[in-house]
Amino acid sequence: MTIKLYCMGESGNAYKAALALELADLEWEPVYVDFFGGETRTPEFREINVMGEVPVLVDGDTSLTQSGVMQMYVSDRTGKFGGNTAEEKRDILRWIMWDNHKLSSQAGMTRFLMNFLPEEKRPLEVIPFMQGRLRAAYTTLNTHLEGRDWIVGDALSNADMSCCGYLFYPEPFGFDRTEWPNIDHWLSNIEQTPGWKHPYDLMPGSPADRA
Amino acid sequence: MTIKLYCMGESGNAYKAALALELADLEWEPVYVDFFGGETRTPEFREINVMGEVPVLVDGDTSLTQSGVMQMYVSDRTGKFGGNTAEEKRDILRWIMWDNHKLSSQAGMTRFLMNFLPEEKRPLEVIPFMQGRLRAAYTTLNTHLEGRDWIVGDALSNADMSCCGYLFYPEPFGFDRTEWPNIDHWLSNIEQTPGWKHPYDLMPGSPADRA
Repeated sequence: MTIKLYCMGESGNAYKAALALELADLEWEPVYVDFFGGETRTPEFREINVMGEVPVLVDGDTSLTQSGVMQMYVSDRTGKFGGNTAEEKRDILRWIMWDNHKLSSQAGMTRFLMNFLPEEKRPLEVIPFMQGRLRAAYTTLNTHLEGRDWIVGDALSNADMSCCGYLFYPEPFGFDRTEWPNIDHWLSNIEQTPGWKHPYDLMPGSPADRA
Repeated sequence: MTIKLYCMGESGNAYKAALALELADLEWEPVYVDFFGGETRTPEFREINVMGEVPVLVDGDTSLTQSGVMQMYVSDRTGKFGGNTAEEKRDILRWIMWDNHKLSSQAGMTRFLMNFLPEEKRPLEVIPFMQGRLRAAYTTLNTHLEGRDWIVGDALSNADMSCCGYLFYPEPFGFDRTEWPNIDHWLSNIEQTPGWKHPYDLMPGSPADRA
């Protein structure tokens, strides 16, 4: 049965799950969610996910939300990207949780405020504040990646596919990979992974559609 | 061997791990970290945790960071709080990730800005913005808890001990449990769990020490 991923190209959180499905060679298809048209705020969507968020993964009778849970589901099904030892598994989960807490949550919000909210509605003090917090997160990641090709161990894992969620997007939100050499090297490693695709090539929906 | 938890009472993220250790009846002791004196920003602490965050759990040769990872470690050791089926395990992880992403991250930051930052340094536009985002998170949790005693299944789990992390603190940050009847009922269930302790009773360090 083909796995369905409810998603849109603009969502870095959806990208984390889509990339794991794609690189694990699972049979999956994206189902476009009209986030910008308000679909995730409808009662129908809230019935599917009380959190009101994309992505949602449906595999037969199994319905999952939260991209980190989907990544672990892909690992459980395929044995890929989840680490080889108990220590690696915990370390991968550690970086997924850090990403949720400090990196993607704030990057996603800042990118939204700067690019997808009408200019007159932008909270102008919030943006530089969030960018300051994000610089602390980039510093942590860049420091950790010193001398490493991957976040955990010596291969691509869910930790990489979580932390990179928002870092390939072209819209400005205060991240410039050339400022962070270890992050830049690590993103290049991900891009060079056979089968890798940019979020706008992997899922339907992009700002170009609304231009 | 006694497990050591590097923590301070003010940290809701540390509380999540401390509460799991305590209610699982593991032998553990808190080691006070002088966060407000800058200890987590020192090179020595960054050596222990590149993320520069409390809590850190040390159990013999095992050193863990991120409270969700510690909670799962407690579950692996004791069989408690981690769910009984694959579906429950995934659902617990889902709520821990949601909490990291939408609830504790923002509650912790807002409480910090409003209570622990000198008044002249407070970013005044950021606080109401974050409080608005937090109200959306309280709404999600309150809706989910309609007719339920616990977040997942019919017993206390790591999902509950994650989401409650910042909700027992007395310092104002825009959360008033009497406004959210299902959250209020659920917090009472946690408080009535045998062995439950308030964060300031479970870990050293509280604003009273600096008053």
